Amino acid sequence: MKKILIIGAGRSSSVLIRYLEENAQKYSWEITVGDNDIQSVLAKVSPSVRTITFDVFNEKQLNEEVQRADIVVSMLPARFHPIVALACLRYSRSLLTASYESPEILEMATQAKAQGILFLNEMGVDPGIDHMSAMHVIDRIREQGHELKCFESFTGGLMAPESDNNPWNYKITWNPRNVVLAGQGGPARFIQEGTYKYIPYHRLFRRTEVIDIQGYGKFEGYANRDSLKYIEKYNLRGVPTVYRGTLRRPGFCRAWDVFVQLGATDDSYTMNNTEEMTYKEFINSFLYYSREDPVKTKLYHYMHIDQDSDVREKLEWLGIFDNTKIGLKNATPAQILERIICNKWVLEPGDKDMLVMWHKFIFHQANQQKPTLLTTSLVVAGDDSVNTAMAKTVGLPLGIATKMVLTGQIRLEGVYIPTIKEIYEPILKELENYNIVFREKSVELLP
Amino acid sequence: MKKILIIGAGRSSSVLIRYLEENAQKYSWEITVGDNDIQSVLAKVSPSVRTITFDVFNEKQLNEEVQRADIVVSMLPARFHPIVALACLRYSRSLLTASYESPEILEMATQAKAQGILFLNEMGVDPGIDHMSAMHVIDRIREQGHELKCFESFTGGLMAPESDNNPWNYKITWNPRNVVLAGQGGPARFIQEGTYKYIPYHRLFRRTEVIDIQGYGKFEGYANRDSLKYIEKYNLRGVPTVYRGTLRRPGFCRAWDVFVQLGATDDSYTMNNTEEMTYKEFINSFLYYSREDPVKTKLYHYMHIDQDSDVREKLEWLGIFDNTKIGLKNATPAQILERIICNKWVLEPGDKDMLVMWHKFIFHQANQQKPTLLTTSLVVAGDDSVNTAMAKTVGLPLGIATKMVLTGQIRLEGVYIPTIKEIYEPILKELENYNIVFREKSVELLP
Repeated sequence: MKKILIIGAGRSSSVLIRYLEENAQKYSWEITVGDNDIQSVLAKVSPSVRTITFDVFNEKQLNEEVQRADIVVSMLPARFHPIVALACLRYSRSLLTASYESPEILEMATQAKAQGILFLNEMGVDPGIDHMSAMHVIDRIREQGHELKCFESFTGGLMAPESDNNPWNYKITWNPRNVVLAGQGGPARFIQEGTYKYIPYHRLFRRTEVIDIQGYGKFEGYANRDSLKYIEKYNLRGVPTVYRGTLRRPGFCRAWDVFVQLGATDDSYTMNNTEEMTYKEFINSFLYYSREDPVKTKLYHYMHIDQDSDVREKLEWLGIFDNTKIGLKNATPAQILERIICNKWVLEPGDKDMLVMWHKFIFHQANQQKPTLLTTSLVVAGDDSVNTAMAKTVGLPLGIATKMVLTGQIRLEGVYIPTIKEIYEPILKELENYNIVFREKSVELLP
Repeated sequence: MKKILIIGAGRSSSVLIRYLEENAQKYSWEITVGDNDIQSVLAKVSPSVRTITFDVFNEKQLNEEVQRADIVVSMLPARFHPIVALACLRYSRSLLTASYESPEILEMATQAKAQGILFLNEMGVDPGIDHMSAMHVIDRIREQGHELKCFESFTGGLMAPESDNNPWNYKITWNPRNVVLAGQGGPARFIQEGTYKYIPYHRLFRRTEVIDIQGYGKFEGYANRDSLKYIEKYNLRGVPTVYRGTLRRPGFCRAWDVFVQLGATDDSYTMNNTEEMTYKEFINSFLYYSREDPVKTKLYHYMHIDQDSDVREKLEWLGIFDNTKIGLKNATPAQILERIICNKWVLEPGDKDMLVMWHKFIFHQANQQKPTLLTTSLVVAGDDSVNTAMAKTVGLPLGIATKMVLTGQIRLEGVYIPTIKEIYEPILKELENYNIVFREKSVELLP
């Protein structure tokens, strides 16, 4: 009997737990789920699962549980993974996560390899399915002897049309703090037609492009952090265009940019008197002083928002001009904005979210004049506010990978992300059973 | 015979050295000037001065020289002051600087006091003369029993009209790196009519106000960092408006904002291939890709710069569309922009700079209905590119304070800035001998 330890029972872990439960009998697994908040665990598991209150900073418990397990899956926030990884090194246990491979984890590569264990990161959706589905096509293009000229990739966690009922076309399906801070921490970087491009944060949400996905309508994409990293990750040196982006419904970015312009997404300092401050006063603290003009007028004037702009509806719907008290002590602008959006962008129980991924490849075939444009797209809808598309697309690849390591289908040792065929091929194949299927469309371009 | 040690012989120290030289005989002083670059020292001193090659990281030399001296003046970059201050504590020597009082220096207050020595910082122009001239008026208003309602203060290092001959109306009279980074590091903060206001960096240069100084024309002012600090420093709790700003000639800020918007002032990351990059390619790396549009067209379009805008003349005059190679390895955007402006905003040998300071006070007199508006202004012109207004207004207050400490006119112990009457009164008085004189203008406002 193999033992699986899952640490962290937050929003994204429901589908992961269910997938492993469904396979537990067939493969004789014992599953343990641990979290600081035992209620959160109990809400997600069937009676066969062993549940524990788990504190990652309790070293004795961490050591005992890791030693007891055959494999560990960490769903904790990314900053805690190194603590778990050190325990895994201590007892030679493999570790899987859906988070970005960190420098701390990479430093453990030699030791992990020496101990014959695998640290497999970036096994969720973004990062995760994006790597796998992109490399699936990139490797194929290369095997056929074609020359890749352009790679673009976009992902977005949005709402399915039937639940897409607010002016922003957006609700919160993951950590709301990350929604507010999205795009911060260095400029967006990418390479376009051989030229390196840099977009500072305060311009990011006005440098969008429109993407049309057949059957699902239009989206807008903005550049996602450092695309240049992916030149290494995907072995794309010499490819003239490499661009990764994030998808929103059209109009979102322009309205969100109002908060960026105001400075309302800043998390670097605390404001004065935030506990007594109202939403309207919060907005006013970023605006010029005027004896006469109301806050709303000042904002629209300052941001050049015309009377017929849909940005007005979006902002007013959020209640930013209300006299509601914020009620947070010593808060940063970002914390206050998070409070405001969390009250409105709520996933209702019956709501269905929608995960959208879209890749674009342009390549030259050796014997043809015209380049080929190939697009692949994925759209996954959630069942409800628990079994979200987000939870499925994060949980399933992670669950499948866990199974494959336990059954010996993956025999890698060291630190990896799923850019290699040995990992992505069987996982993409099994994901199709869960209706996670990419659609391909190919056209010849004018030369 | 008292011994003065001056460490650092950069641009701003020429007038300081001369002031002390001129007083040396009368007061029997021996002056030592030390710098890493002995040529820089020799260019600034008369034969009576003792000159040394000085390395602040040579602890033996630092200890010897500090012990040998009766008082130390540090003109080094601010980050080196704590090293010098520790040596001063070791040998009970007072230390004067023109830099902001740092937390590290403040931590030494108790020990300095115990040893009967004075660490006097912020003794230049801004910070320095700004404190002294503001407190001079603020204390007077209070002594007369009036109630201060508004304090605003602006300073700018600009060019005298006869040397003001480029489209930016600006040349570099201090550290060019600080010119590029001006306004970065947290939002500008101030209080206006009782409301706290915050301006993020990317909006700072578009939130200017116009200031007219009789006889010198119009200036534009933008908010200077954290004005809220001055509520403590000047004891202004309860005053509804406290605002500090920086002055430029009209039109400067709007054109500089183009670089801010592009992300060209960012010092947080290095760009790719900067050694081979041209000025034009530098600008292009912040712009959208286009197969047809020239870089200039793209910039003007992206930044909404009309054909009749004076911003065009400013940008083109800087040569940003030239094919000149940058020639810097692994440079940040800020470093590249510094290189570009340093080639153009050059102080020619005969150039006269101009230091402008302007304070505004509004106060209520106990027995009057109408509030009084009082403005005080200072304009100092440089003699040439060495004896600049900047060097005078930094060096003279520092020199006078050094004299006052040596002669016992200032007998303070501990860590201070010149906001107290004991310091500012005699210094402002002596500055008048050097034509550093504030003009006052007072009018009654409508109630």
